[in-house]
Amino acid sequence: MGTLAEEIFSHKLGRPVKAGDTVVVEVDHVMSHDTTTPLAIQAFRKLAQKNGGKVFDRSRAHLVFDHIVPASTIAAASLQREVRTFAKEQDLPILQEGICHQVMPEKGFVLPGTVIVGADSHSCTYGAFGAFGTGMGSTDIAVAYATGRSWFRIPETINVHLTGTLQPGVYAKDVSLEIVRRLGVDGANYRAIEYTGEVIERFSMSERMTFSNMAIEMGGKAGLIAADETTREWLRGRTDKEYTIVKAHNPRYEQVLEIDVTDLKPLVACPPDVNIVHPAEEVENIQIDQVFLGTCTNGRLDDLEIAANMLRGRKISPNLRMVVIPASREIYLEAMRRGYLEIFAEAGASVGTPGCGPCIGRHFGVLAPGERALTTMNRNFTGRMGDPTAEIYLGSPATVTATALTGHITDPRTILQSELVLSEAN
Amino acid sequence: MGTLAEEIFSHKLGRPVKAGDTVVVEVDHVMSHDTTTPLAIQAFRKLAQKNGGKVFDRSRAHLVFDHIVPASTIAAASLQREVRTFAKEQDLPILQEGICHQVMPEKGFVLPGTVIVGADSHSCTYGAFGAFGTGMGSTDIAVAYATGRSWFRIPETINVHLTGTLQPGVYAKDVSLEIVRRLGVDGANYRAIEYTGEVIERFSMSERMTFSNMAIEMGGKAGLIAADETTREWLRGRTDKEYTIVKAHNPRYEQVLEIDVTDLKPLVACPPDVNIVHPAEEVENIQIDQVFLGTCTNGRLDDLEIAANMLRGRKISPNLRMVVIPASREIYLEAMRRGYLEIFAEAGASVGTPGCGPCIGRHFGVLAPGERALTTMNRNFTGRMGDPTAEIYLGSPATVTATALTGHITDPRTILQSELVLSEAN
Repeated sequence: MGTLAEEIFSHKLGRPVKAGDTVVVEVDHVMSHDTTTPLAIQAFRKLAQKNGGKVFDRSRAHLVFDHIVPASTIAAASLQREVRTFAKEQDLPILQEGICHQVMPEKGFVLPGTVIVGADSHSCTYGAFGAFGTGMGSTDIAVAYATGRSWFRIPETINVHLTGTLQPGVYAKDVSLEIVRRLGVDGANYRAIEYTGEVIERFSMSERMTFSNMAIEMGGKAGLIAADETTREWLRGRTDKEYTIVKAHNPRYEQVLEIDVTDLKPLVACPPDVNIVHPAEEVENIQIDQVFLGTCTNGRLDDLEIAANMLRGRKISPNLRMVVIPASREIYLEAMRRGYLEIFAEAGASVGTPGCGPCIGRHFGVLAPGERALTTMNRNFTGRMGDPTAEIYLGSPATVTATALTGHITDPRTILQSELVLSEAN
Repeated sequence: MGTLAEEIFSHKLGRPVKAGDTVVVEVDHVMSHDTTTPLAIQAFRKLAQKNGGKVFDRSRAHLVFDHIVPASTIAAASLQREVRTFAKEQDLPILQEGICHQVMPEKGFVLPGTVIVGADSHSCTYGAFGAFGTGMGSTDIAVAYATGRSWFRIPETINVHLTGTLQPGVYAKDVSLEIVRRLGVDGANYRAIEYTGEVIERFSMSERMTFSNMAIEMGGKAGLIAADETTREWLRGRTDKEYTIVKAHNPRYEQVLEIDVTDLKPLVACPPDVNIVHPAEEVENIQIDQVFLGTCTNGRLDDLEIAANMLRGRKISPNLRMVVIPASREIYLEAMRRGYLEIFAEAGASVGTPGCGPCIGRHFGVLAPGERALTTMNRNFTGRMGDPTAEIYLGSPATVTATALTGHITDPRTILQSELVLSEAN
């Protein structure tokens, strides 16, 4: 009996453990990316000497290039060269096919009931598959690379229970922002969030990933969703490994947050914190200089589909620019085949190669002083996309696209309704 | 009677002028881009006061964003914001659809017999259309924006006369490199180059642009090709303006360089100068870290087609990365519709949004210390693509693509022949 977090660790260890226990676990996969690997390499070189200097298991250690690729500065290029040298030493491939949190599941590395650690805070995204995924610092990741093990204090769990039915124009991202608004940016510190309820059960894997991804925005160590048939279906063809679907059993939650999503409106998180959330319709007067559709939060095929349906045959406002970056090469190629990328380019957007894009303010859409961006990102911290006087607003792909058409923050329902594309986009 | 340069200026002025004359001409179009416009604005603000502070003609002044878009740094974003403010003041659109030298002709601004000045050294590209296009500093461009006029010393002309037939695997870029090898990097200082002969006459507009584009690599003020039916056909649908096809008449050239292209092999320019040219087969042992297909020299549809035909169903070498950037949105969209971009992404390349890409070392493929790139660019100067210890090699799209497949500089004929795609690619 336990929460999903407790059950996953109990399953991994073969003995019942509970929140508060400190355990050492064999991790299933370890991941780091182009900006966190260099530090991990330094620590690894010291730790791994007695192990022959090799990573614990080549098939479970993953180097992903996604943050600043192709490199935009000599500094970034130099760090990447360092990682390439390490990869060659270790005979590890470099995965440069999109954002780590999208590529890891696509490659079949993220399976229900497993434990995955990544040198990136949004490693909690893997929770959407019923896996305990969490972000760690580069030194902890170095330990995992060297030993294949990590220690955990099993977290208490906050249950977010979602009921009701979303209205047209309201999406998983809006619900995610509502949860951050209610819990606050530190409301889940050191906790796991376990998302349950009919709304989650109806959601696609992509939508579930949006929720799990944003768990860290409340301080959560993990954002867990029990695997089910939807998960199994998504994984079909991506792995031939056996896996166990672990579920919570008579869980004892530290806190339960019930939200009926029925009356939710499209929401926007205003700078400089993710929990400063307002209905889009209440902040419509804010002029925007750049919109960005992409990231590990909302750069998947369904996100691009929503935007493409709204942009088909139209041009973005001449008063802003639009950046679109599919989260992975798989998504990029499918979006191309379906004609979405053509729609974006014809509308006037800059379509980037799969990766993190301007989300970390290092390339492909950095903001000038005083500029404002509305993005599908998970974070709006001061200075994240460029100049510290720039402002970052967060919304759903639909809100971002509606805004691309008008030049100011726009409730997507006004576009969807006025154009009768409601049925198509929802 | 005169060279093409003399005839264009005589046509513009309505009186015969000759090399050595200093003239003031009404320019047909003026262009600057995101990195040269800020300086031009400063000078313009001083000059244009008596003119009401407005550019001479909104329909003939063009601001193109291509060099660092989307912005990769706060500095670049800030400069772009400055230009956007200027554009708004002047009620000028910002063209962010690709490289200025590709977008200007596509928009129908580059017509035979006209004079165009641009704040970019490769403005000589317009010579492919029988227009006198030349690059100027930002201050001179500011004068042109303010007054609609520029002064010129009509240049002497070097005639490059091309005869013979290209062998399979040898392209316009190889011939261009051979010309630079023969004339040297300062062999055409202050001169116009006039390209003539059966080879030029058979070439498409895209191939002609490669020649005109590289005139500045020999110091040429212009790289002129007389307009003909090929030019007229290309311009059909792009302009409804009348234009006059100007030709040289009994020209007196300062120098004539005759090249029979029949025995030419695929060539590579080695760092740090464009005239250090060797047959690709003689430098095949050089390992390459990055290949780049794109730029105003070789980022057009036929260039992408050559590469797509060679890459179809294949993967690039795991030992390098490949960046592909179509020169304009028009090319990007057509390459997407024809399936080329899908081939590139499936092969493992990063496809960028139309623009200059890493050609100027500011984003999307900057080189680390000691790295080597083989590119379709026009320049291989030290430090141009990133670290000053990095090395830049130049070749044709076919040589770049062959190299992408092997990881080291590769004569494309070995790939083309071994795979029997020769007939398809040529």
